[in-house]
Amino acid sequence: MPTVRITRRLHFSAAHRLHSDQLSAEENASFYGLCNSPNYHGHNYELDVTVEGEIDPDTGYVMDLGRLKALVEAEVVADVDHRNLNLDVPWLEGVIPSAENLVVRIWERLAGRIRDGRLVKLVLWETPRNYAEYQGDIRGNNGGEP
Amino acid sequence: MPTVRITRRLHFSAAHRLHSDQLSAEENASFYGLCNSPNYHGHNYELDVTVEGEIDPDTGYVMDLGRLKALVEAEVVADVDHRNLNLDVPWLEGVIPSAENLVVRIWERLAGRIRDGRLVKLVLWETPRNYAEYQGDIRGNNGGEP
Amino acid sequence: MPTVRITRRLHFSAAHRLHSDQLSAEENASFYGLCNSPNYHGHNYELDVTVEGEIDPDTGYVMDLGRLKALVEAEVVADVDHRNLNLDVPWLEGVIPSAENLVVRIWERLAGRIRDGRLVKLVLWETPRNYAEYQGDIRGNNGGEP
Amino acid sequence: MPTVRITRRLHFSAAHRLHSDQLSAEENASFYGLCNSPNYHGHNYELDVTVEGEIDPDTGYVMDLGRLKALVEAEVVADVDHRNLNLDVPWLEGVIPSAENLVVRIWERLAGRIRDGRLVKLVLWETPRNYAEYQGDIRGNNGGEP
Amino acid sequence: MPTVRITRRLHFSAAHRLHSDQLSAEENASFYGLCNSPNYHGHNYELDVTVEGEIDPDTGYVMDLGRLKALVEAEVVADVDHRNLNLDVPWLEGVIPSAENLVVRIWERLAGRIRDGRLVKLVLWETPRNYAEYQGDIRGNNGGEP
Amino acid sequence: MPTVRITRRLHFSAAHRLHSDQLSAEENASFYGLCNSPNYHGHNYELDVTVEGEIDPDTGYVMDLGRLKALVEAEVVADVDHRNLNLDVPWLEGVIPSAENLVVRIWERLAGRIRDGRLVKLVLWETPRNYAEYQGDIRGNNGGEP
Repeated sequence: MPTVRITRRLHFSAAHRLHSDQLSAEENASFYGLCNSPNYHGHNYELDVTVEGEIDPDTGYVMDLGRLKALVEAEVVADVDHRNLNLDVPWLEGVIPSAENLVVRIWERLAGRIRDGRLVKLVLWETPRNYAEYQGDIRGNNGGEP
Repeated sequence: MPTVRITRRLHFSAAHRLHSDQLSAEENASFYGLCNSPNYHGHNYELDVTVEGEIDPDTGYVMDLGRLKALVEAEVVADVDHRNLNLDVPWLEGVIPSAENLVVRIWERLAGRIRDGRLVKLVLWETPRNYAEYQGDIRGNNGGEP
Repeated sequence: MPTVRITRRLHFSAAHRLHSDQLSAEENASFYGLCNSPNYHGHNYELDVTVEGEIDPDTGYVMDLGRLKALVEAEVVADVDHRNLNLDVPWLEGVIPSAENLVVRIWERLAGRIRDGRLVKLVLWETPRNYAEYQGDIRGNNGGEP
Repeated sequence: MPTVRITRRLHFSAAHRLHSDQLSAEENASFYGLCNSPNYHGHNYELDVTVEGEIDPDTGYVMDLGRLKALVEAEVVADVDHRNLNLDVPWLEGVIPSAENLVVRIWERLAGRIRDGRLVKLVLWETPRNYAEYQGDIRGNNGGEP
Repeated sequence: MPTVRITRRLHFSAAHRLHSDQLSAEENASFYGLCNSPNYHGHNYELDVTVEGEIDPDTGYVMDLGRLKALVEAEVVADVDHRNLNLDVPWLEGVIPSAENLVVRIWERLAGRIRDGRLVKLVLWETPRNYAEYQGDIRGNNGGEP
Repeated sequence: MPTVRITRRLHFSAAHRLHSDQLSAEENASFYGLCNSPNYHGHNYELDVTVEGEIDPDTGYVMDLGRLKALVEAEVVADVDHRNLNLDVPWLEGVIPSAENLVVRIWERLAGRIRDGRLVKLVLWETPRNYAEYQGDIRGNNGGEP
C-alpha cells in the first residue's frame, strides 16, 4: 500500500517570556528585545502534526485523525492552552520557551505515543508569519545521515 | 466627492488574564474558565482600523494609510505589543482586558487623533475565530444621529 | 456602558443539492448547473455569529463566547455537521438548501435563544470565496425601525 | 421573503502608480512615498461584491452567484487583470488609481448592471492588510433613504 | 539550470461518505463516527500540485502554470467537482474516499501526464485543518531509498 | 542539540512582465498570455525564508528571527518592494522575472549572508494560489546527490 502523510492542525493560546539564565539582565534585554518583556506576552499557537504510514486497505486511513487530535489534545494542548509556558507546564520546566525549544519538547511528548504510523514532522506557528519545524533526530529532509 | 471607508490591519502579541474584582475567586474560575488561569495566557491580536471620509480629489486618498498605521502604532501598538495587558499598560489600569473592553479603550485612544476622516469602526481579533467590534457611541454603523 | 458586537466563528461540513420542485428537471439543470448534480456535493461551511449588547461592567463581557459557542453547537452544528442538508435535518425539511435559505433558517433557530445580548448578524460562508449574510427582518444593520 | 446579502469574491493582478497632476514631483514623492515609484509596482487585488435582495421562493437564491461572477468578470476583471491601471483601462483614464478611486469606479461599472438584487457594498483589498469599501452615494450601509 | 519546484492550488467541492465493506455496520459507525453518516456529507477540497524541474533558460519557467492548471482541471477537477465521490467518479469506483486514498488516485491520474517537469508532491486539504500528502512511490522526503 | 528549521515570512509588492528575448513578439504573447501584457502587471509577493541549524542551548534560538527579517529586508525587500522587477533592480538585470527565476536570485542574495544556521528553503508566493520553491543546488528534498 502507498505511504502517505496526514496532517492535523491544533491550536492553543499561551503566555511566555524569553529569558536565559546564561545571560545577564542587560544581555537578555538586548538579545531578546521585546520578547524579554518581564510580565510576559503571548501568542495564538498553531501546531501541525504530521504522521506518515501505509494506508490500511480495510479503512483507507493511515491513522484516524480524530484519534490523533485526541492524543495531541491530551498530551500537549491540555497542558499548554491558556497557560504560562514559563511557569505552568511541568514538562517545560527549565526550558526557554522559544518556538524551537517548544517544538522539540512537543515532539518528545508525542513521538512514542503514536501508533498506526510514525510522527515525521511538527510545525509550530508562533504567529501567522513565523514558525519552527522539527523532524526528529533524523536529520531534516535534505538527505543527511542519521 | 464619494464617501469611502478605508481599513488598515495591525497586529500585536500580548498576555492577559480575565479576572473581576466584583467576583469571588470561585466565581472568577467558574465564569471565565481557562481565561482566568492565574499566570496569564496570551494571543496574537489583529486590529482592523476603519476610517471614513470623502476622497480628496487632489490625491485620491481619504487618508494616507501609512500615516494611519504610524498613528495606531504610536498610540496603541507601542504600548500593548509584547506586553501584559493586566500589568503593563497605563491606559488599561483597572480594566478587565476582555476583547470588548480593549476595543472600547483603543477607540478612546484613537478617535480624537484621526484627521482627514473619522474613525467609524474597530475590529479586534483575539483569535482567528472570535473578535469584538465597536463603532463608537453612535448607534449603528451609518453615522446617523443617536 | 458601550454597546459592542462580538462574533464567534463555527464550522460544519455537509452535503447538499440545489433542486426546486417549482422547476422542471431541465430548468433545474439549467438554472443551478453543477449545484443540481443528483448525488449531492458538499462544502466546509463557516458560520459567523454576531451578538450585540452592552458590556457588563462586572465581567467585561457582552456575552460569554464559550456559552455562545455551546449554544450554536447544540442548536445548529449538532444537526448539520456531517449531514445531508436535503435529507437529514428536520428544520430544513422542504427548504432548498441554498446559502441564503440556510442562513435565514439558522437565524430562526438562534434568535430567540440568545440572552445577554441580541443576535444582529449571521454570515454563512459556503466556500472561502462566497457567503450569505442575514441581519434579521429589521432592515439594515443599524438597529433602525422597519 | 427575507432580505439577504450575498457576496462573491473575485481577484485580479495589476500594476499601478500613485501620482497626482495637482502636485509637484517633490510633493508626489513626499506624499505617496514608495507608491509614487516611477516604473509602477503592483498588487493581487481581491474584490468582494455584495448584492442584497429578497430570496426568490422558487429558487432559494437572491441572485445566481455564477451569473454575478460572470458579470463582474466581463465588466471589471477582463479590463484590469494583468493590466496597468494607469495606462491600460479606458474607464480609469485620468483617475489616480488609489484603492478609494478604484472602488468607486468599479461601483459605477456594476451598479446599473445588476438585476435580481441591488449592489450594496464593494470591498477592494489591495493587500491582505488594507482595503477600501464603498456603499454607493447613499450614506450608510442600509440602502435607506438619505 | 537550477531545479525549482512550482505549485498550483486548485479547488473542488464534493460529497463523500466513509464506509468499508470489510467492516460490519456497527464497526463502520464506530470506526468512522460522523464520517460514516449514511446520506453523505461534503467538503471544499483544496489540491496543491507540485512539479519539479529545471528552469527553461529561454522562458524562465519550469512549466507553464496555466497549462498545469488546465491539465488538473481536465483530468481531476472536471470529474470530482460538485460530485459524489462514492457514486459519480469512474476512477474512484470501489475506493473508500478518504483523503489518503483520494490523493493517491489523483497522483495516478496526473503523474504520467505532466511533461516539462515531474510531479513530486500532492497535498489534498479536506478542511483548513487537515490534509493528506503524497510524494509517489519514492519514499517521502526523508532521504529513504526508492 | 536538536536541528530545527525556522521560517519567517516577508512580503513585498512589485510590478513585472514576462517577456523573453529568445522569442518573437507573437511567441511571447502566445506563450505567456496575459503575463506578457506590455505595460506590466503586479503582485503582492510573500517570501518564506527557512533556516536550519542546531538550537543554541544558551538562547533557545537557531537564529534570531528579528535579525533574519532585518537581513532579508536589507538585501531583498528594500530593492524590490514597490518596484518594477524588469526595470528597477540591478541584481535582476537581464532576468525574466518569473517566480522561478526570482526565487533563485533571491537565494543567491541570501545564502552567503546567513550565519548561525544555513538557508535551506525559499518559497515565493506570487498569488495565494501559486508559488515557487527552491532549496539550493542540492537536488530537491528527497535525498538525491548534488
